[in-house]
Amino acid sequence: MAIITLTTDFGEKDYFAGATKGAIYSELPDVKIVDISHSVSPFNIPEAAYIIQNAYKSFPKGSIHIIGIDSEINPENKHIAIKLDEHYFICANNGIMSMICSEIAPEKIVEINIHDKIQTSFPVLDVFVKVACHIARGGTLEVIGKSISEIKPIKNIVPYVNDDKTQIIGSIIYIDNYGNVVTNIKRGFFETVQKGRKFEISARNYTFKKIYNKYSDIVNFEIPENKRNDEGRKLVVFNSGDFLEIAVYKSNSATVGSASTLLGLGLMDTVSVNFIPEPVLPKGIEIPENITKAADY
Amino acid sequence: MAIITLTTDFGEKDYFAGATKGAIYSELPDVKIVDISHSVSPFNIPEAAYIIQNAYKSFPKGSIHIIGIDSEINPENKHIAIKLDEHYFICANNGIMSMICSEIAPEKIVEINIHDKIQTSFPVLDVFVKVACHIARGGTLEVIGKSISEIKPIKNIVPYVNDDKTQIIGSIIYIDNYGNVVTNIKRGFFETVQKGRKFEISARNYTFKKIYNKYSDIVNFEIPENKRNDEGRKLVVFNSGDFLEIAVYKSNSATVGSASTLLGLGLMDTVSVNFIPEPVLPKGIEIPENITKAADY
Amino acid sequence: MAIITLTTDFGEKDYFAGATKGAIYSELPDVKIVDISHSVSPFNIPEAAYIIQNAYKSFPKGSIHIIGIDSEINPENKHIAIKLDEHYFICANNGIMSMICSEIAPEKIVEINIHDKIQTSFPVLDVFVKVACHIARGGTLEVIGKSISEIKPIKNIVPYVNDDKTQIIGSIIYIDNYGNVVTNIKRGFFETVQKGRKFEISARNYTFKKIYNKYSDIVNFEIPENKRNDEGRKLVVFNSGDFLEIAVYKSNSATVGSASTLLGLGLMDTVSVNFIPEPVLPKGIEIPENITKAADY
Repeated sequence: MAIITLTTDFGEKDYFAGATKGAIYSELPDVKIVDISHSVSPFNIPEAAYIIQNAYKSFPKGSIHIIGIDSEINPENKHIAIKLDEHYFICANNGIMSMICSEIAPEKIVEINIHDKIQTSFPVLDVFVKVACHIARGGTLEVIGKSISEIKPIKNIVPYVNDDKTQIIGSIIYIDNYGNVVTNIKRGFFETVQKGRKFEISARNYTFKKIYNKYSDIVNFEIPENKRNDEGRKLVVFNSGDFLEIAVYKSNSATVGSASTLLGLGLMDTVSVNFIPEPVLPKGIEIPENITKAADY
Repeated sequence: MAIITLTTDFGEKDYFAGATKGAIYSELPDVKIVDISHSVSPFNIPEAAYIIQNAYKSFPKGSIHIIGIDSEINPENKHIAIKLDEHYFICANNGIMSMICSEIAPEKIVEINIHDKIQTSFPVLDVFVKVACHIARGGTLEVIGKSISEIKPIKNIVPYVNDDKTQIIGSIIYIDNYGNVVTNIKRGFFETVQKGRKFEISARNYTFKKIYNKYSDIVNFEIPENKRNDEGRKLVVFNSGDFLEIAVYKSNSATVGSASTLLGLGLMDTVSVNFIPEPVLPKGIEIPENITKAADY
Repeated sequence: MAIITLTTDFGEKDYFAGATKGAIYSELPDVKIVDISHSVSPFNIPEAAYIIQNAYKSFPKGSIHIIGIDSEINPENKHIAIKLDEHYFICANNGIMSMICSEIAPEKIVEINIHDKIQTSFPVLDVFVKVACHIARGGTLEVIGKSISEIKPIKNIVPYVNDDKTQIIGSIIYIDNYGNVVTNIKRGFFETVQKGRKFEISARNYTFKKIYNKYSDIVNFEIPENKRNDEGRKLVVFNSGDFLEIAVYKSNSATVGSASTLLGLGLMDTVSVNFIPEPVLPKGIEIPENITKAADY
């Protein structure tokens, strides 16, 4: 049976998520409903885009993803359904899907046009659930909307590269549960610009010269545990979604602090990467291997 | 298979909700369990009443709703099961169900009397789960309790109307995830008292003369988007549960502010509606249409 | 079909829990996934240990419990799978399971060794899900790991008893959603040391001489409701997990206060129990029954 996922800013307390699930089960008793997140910050499109982009890939092909953020219909905010990567997405045309669509071309986009039959002050419940159940029953997008070719972009979601490709200027698009700050700089994009050069990553007055593979790579396990002091150390990684992330080892915003609290970094703050040209060395001279390490933060 | 929903003040962290679900699956492996909310404020009966009243209707007939708020049994707090609107509700007799029961007459109320077989410090797990599974298996309420005809009311949950019907005095019973403040004044009640008259809604030192149909109706879409400044505007709507609500357009309590934070409104604060008598106009004079609009907040 | 539960510090907002569920359904469409908690404080091993210990017992035998706390693999933090009490647990070998294992001997412990096939920055998704699905399909632990006989302990999780058994020194290991503070002193342990003696429980400058059976036992229901003032009264109970707990009747940390806020008690704070030797009374003299009651807090 189909899977329908929910990503919303309804919060954990209100009746909205519960009512939505009830409405789905009323139409399709055997469907599987999976909560991805109901704790997107209210009306925060980039957060929702980041969450759904990273979550959907783990689900089976054919899954249907309802995204309930800023979904009240009005002349500037239409409802759309998208087929992409063999998944279905139902949301408002407010930029949420532009991040995914810039990486993977959608197979089909329709503007939902079943509203004449529906009087609603709760569009996720009344419109998105209907569309999701239609798809889950094997219905096509054409039946519930008219094809469109473009969707609205999100502003400022793409990092900027300067003309001579020596600098990426990105921004923080997400702060996770550990207070780690996630930028809009993805690994593939970074490496394309980098072309093997050394780099310096800057955020406020902090700089980093290395990107770790995983958080605990910052720990030197040759030093006995009681003589190390790794918790609270700052580092940069590509996270599990392949986004460049500034992290703090074993962070906790409420106690020992986190990248967000210790470095004073918030949503939309700038993180820049400066690439350092390889020095032209006289023939026969080689840079010793350990220089990279010596320069690490 | 039956659906069992959970509405509690257990919070998102503790083991209580998980253990309750485990206990249900231990009895009924094929039942569907749906979390409505575990984030009701501790011991907050009106919040729980508001949430369950608005959520249950979306579920299929025959659904069983466990409400775990202030459920420790004692001489003044008995356990009850109610059949109403073809749904089942299991909770303590502490007022939670009085809001629903005042709108829809219960078909059956029983005081649960299976406690002699159960020694418990976790009544939701040990008593409510047993009752829910009994009902899910097709059992009747008579088997697990004795019929009663009355349940406990919640104090101050009903708005007050003055004798000459010129004023409704309501109060705030819920603040939602967007910081919108929900009053206990329902649309049907409002319109019955209103009888088509104009009105002024007051909360602290703010007044409103119009009730919108949906949040974005406050926006004038004829003005170009970059010249509007609608986010943060205050308005009144009947929300998706048909309760009178003071809202802020695209609010976020943590950033731009919300009805609760910007207007300084909290639970149990007063919201009043004053109805304005139609002026007796000399024959032949008409009030221009746009006066209502001009007077809008 | 098998049940797989999730206990993590992923929080309610991030994509981690959603992605994990998607990965499980991708492997096993018919499995049941149950969220126990995603709100364990980041990297807080004792909290996770407390939650899983109290939740797992309610689930059917054969359930598989994924615990995603501090699960990044490194030379000091291996992945393990444990069969215990006919349940399966998958987690890092970081102390989480030591609390349960000290009460119930594990049937089998293996160190997971399937990592050579997996390159991951998200071990719960990539490793724990694989192991859980392997077990759910009826696979044995031997196939995915090598047997080990010992697991890592958690420091300071066991209460201390002095040599002449007159004192237990425990500590607070959990603060629940009601702000009640839970110690590491379990009922069985308490009663073994107590041997029927009277006692005085101390936390900061508060002392308690009685342990109640349930919260509302502090209420004297013979006094009319409007003349009582029980809300906010402090008391000690053995909670539903049989842990000694300092509570406040009908508490709410955000409004009326709670044991944590009113008594100023936090995680790892000390709670001690002093046992009072029975006085040697001259023959023929008896202590009246009501003395215990008179001495109650």
